[in-house]
Amino acid sequence: MHATDDTHRPELGSWVASANQPATDFPVQNLPFGVFSRVREGGPPRCGIAIGDSILDVSAAADLGLFGETELPAALACAEPRLNALMAMGANVVRALRAAVSRMLRDDTEEGKRAEAVAREILVRMHDAVMRLPAEIGDYTDFYASVHHATNVGSMFRPDNPLLPNYKWVPIGYHGRSSSIVVSGTPVRRPKGQTRNDPAGPISVGPSARLDYELEVGAFVGPGNTMGETIPIGEAASHLFGLCLVNDWSARDIQSWEYQPLGPFLAKSFATTISPWVVTLDALEPFRVAPAERAAGDPAPLAYLSGDDDRARGAFDITLEVWLSSESMRASNTPAMRVSRGRFVDMYWTLAQLLTHHASNGCPMRAGDLIASGTVSGPTPDSRGCLLERAWRGTEPLRLPTGEPRRFLEDGDEVTLRGWCERPGARRIGFGECRGVVAAAR
Amino acid sequence: MHATDDTHRPELGSWVASANQPATDFPVQNLPFGVFSRVREGGPPRCGIAIGDSILDVSAAADLGLFGETELPAALACAEPRLNALMAMGANVVRALRAAVSRMLRDDTEEGKRAEAVAREILVRMHDAVMRLPAEIGDYTDFYASVHHATNVGSMFRPDNPLLPNYKWVPIGYHGRSSSIVVSGTPVRRPKGQTRNDPAGPISVGPSARLDYELEVGAFVGPGNTMGETIPIGEAASHLFGLCLVNDWSARDIQSWEYQPLGPFLAKSFATTISPWVVTLDALEPFRVAPAERAAGDPAPLAYLSGDDDRARGAFDITLEVWLSSESMRASNTPAMRVSRGRFVDMYWTLAQLLTHHASNGCPMRAGDLIASGTVSGPTPDSRGCLLERAWRGTEPLRLPTGEPRRFLEDGDEVTLRGWCERPGARRIGFGECRGVVAAAR
Repeated sequence: MHATDDTHRPELGSWVASANQPATDFPVQNLPFGVFSRVREGGPPRCGIAIGDSILDVSAAADLGLFGETELPAALACAEPRLNALMAMGANVVRALRAAVSRMLRDDTEEGKRAEAVAREILVRMHDAVMRLPAEIGDYTDFYASVHHATNVGSMFRPDNPLLPNYKWVPIGYHGRSSSIVVSGTPVRRPKGQTRNDPAGPISVGPSARLDYELEVGAFVGPGNTMGETIPIGEAASHLFGLCLVNDWSARDIQSWEYQPLGPFLAKSFATTISPWVVTLDALEPFRVAPAERAAGDPAPLAYLSGDDDRARGAFDITLEVWLSSESMRASNTPAMRVSRGRFVDMYWTLAQLLTHHASNGCPMRAGDLIASGTVSGPTPDSRGCLLERAWRGTEPLRLPTGEPRRFLEDGDEVTLRGWCERPGARRIGFGECRGVVAAAR
Repeated sequence: MHATDDTHRPELGSWVASANQPATDFPVQNLPFGVFSRVREGGPPRCGIAIGDSILDVSAAADLGLFGETELPAALACAEPRLNALMAMGANVVRALRAAVSRMLRDDTEEGKRAEAVAREILVRMHDAVMRLPAEIGDYTDFYASVHHATNVGSMFRPDNPLLPNYKWVPIGYHGRSSSIVVSGTPVRRPKGQTRNDPAGPISVGPSARLDYELEVGAFVGPGNTMGETIPIGEAASHLFGLCLVNDWSARDIQSWEYQPLGPFLAKSFATTISPWVVTLDALEPFRVAPAERAAGDPAPLAYLSGDDDRARGAFDITLEVWLSSESMRASNTPAMRVSRGRFVDMYWTLAQLLTHHASNGCPMRAGDLIASGTVSGPTPDSRGCLLERAWRGTEPLRLPTGEPRRFLEDGDEVTLRGWCERPGARRIGFGECRGVVAAAR
């Protein structure tokens, strides 16, 4: 934890009352960044910070003189319709801005009193706002960092050879599609495509019959690296702005027919949903822990992927859940059903290792680039992060409260991802939700 | 050919004398778009059109009143530092602009006389300009559309299984990395990475020892599609703005170790070089031909990939070459050596099929997105488009004029791609060059 950063102290409260409720994802200890538009007044999107059930309009606060000279450039960058400029400013600048916002939203400071007096001008209720993508995502990369997921899926696609020889040496990843990343709440249309479910059978073209979600954590890149330069593992965390939730929707039937030899393509590129709030690494500081120990006999990470700080606290202790509700569940007011709960600490590679590996060939990372972890699956069946694993390729269908079976997603199904951090001695913080409803194919 | 478009007539000449030389890539029949900066005067990059050894500063011509009202909005969009806005305007708008520029640069028109009178204000010599990337490339996709390349490479990586069962049904492609696309002339640093040349041997980390080029053709997307919608094959050509040359630099040793199961990643993402001039589909109109016939026994393309127009003239008859010179060749003034010559008509899939397939799942394509063909290899050894194939995985090294052997690229090697179209009754047009020198690893 940073000596100068006291924004995590669990006893802090806010003059925004909803931020003090125990169940909120957004207490004053969190302060995640996002991009919003006001529903009624209209106007261009701008950057805000979540506090309870409201959003601090950062640049409105700047216009009212609520920031000091130090934080002013960063606060003014929040007038832009995306976080990229702020992300590029670096960890120290963002930390100072976030600390100033903390003082501004607390109930025990002079800054808080001044801000509360102009609350109507600087706060927007979340239900009066529409959230946008937090950044212009130049490049999106999806990794495969859960050894449990890789082993489960591998055993279905390649029973004789589930985990490939490179897995424990190379953080496996592939480039994803930026143009189809959408913010939570956007309907996701079932894709059509080529499939061949029986290797000797006919090829079909039509709506995917094996639509799936994937529970992932995404990391937004802060300051990037120059092309041809690398990012040493010890500096990786300072290149990460913050984390969000990612649903990497996948069409398993399209995937299994198209993916060799160049990897998943149309099975993924139809839609990827992310949560709108980006939780900074500073907010996650109290929840950094040592990564899970590797199994006996596994190779140690190679030197360029090994760092003292990463070994000591390279993982983030985030609990992650997937909730599912069918159209008939919602019609009958049946609450959504939790279909999995996993922990981000179960990943085989840390985010720092993923970023360092990504830049190890000199590939330039840019502020606003998104790196996703790959499906977060743990060692137990109920911690498996996709339906393919959860219902074991359709052979063990889930049973919804309405009695409906689920092998893969049906039209009208709503998938909601949630994530939060809690531990004794710290205030619980959350990610909000990452939600999407499946629309029928056209 | 469009009835209203007479820009191809072979007898047309230009008042820019260099455009009338037989060997130029940029006669008045071509008129490709690019983005340039003036070296001496400085100033922001803007869009221009190549003519002989010069560049027409389109928005400067607009400022001088040389465009009619119809073309003015498109001409003014050329004041931007990238072609994206123009690309989004669509084929009809670009066609009208290009036709106006044709009249402006011809030696037999009133418009030409007016333009020649202000030549100093609207023309920039190429050697007084620095070329930039032509567009902000939101997403970059690399296909694998040469069956000869796929078979050759497959037989090296999977001797028992060279061409996978999906190849003749699915246009295979993968998402590439946008951030490392650079314009011709940018040095390319040899990447470092993990390699394991012997499946049972140790893993190394260090500079790639198997650096390669790949000769490809790139297509810039014009107007895109809305997410969730598709692009029917009959409309695909109208969504393509124009073509360029692409060198998809590849580190074969990194690739073979990392690529399973999710495809190439760091083996490609360190650099991709493109030529600066985008040759419009209108300029290529006289060189559109029927695609190569599929071999007997091959499946016909599925319905969504079949179109009358595409069958009749979906291919582009472009001759493509790779030239190589080592540092010692350049030191001794030895001319570069041509290492391959192929034809773009030898591809298994047309560009329209690639685009239609790409959007068939509803993936949104955006103006400025880049789609590359994959390595252009033909049926004969001298038409193989990468060194891996040309020197057959190092077993048949090339011999340079200096006597130096080449299994893979060495530091200081300069790779230059060229492409052009010619046929009786049409004026030859070219793509300019796509060039890069290999810099030593850091």
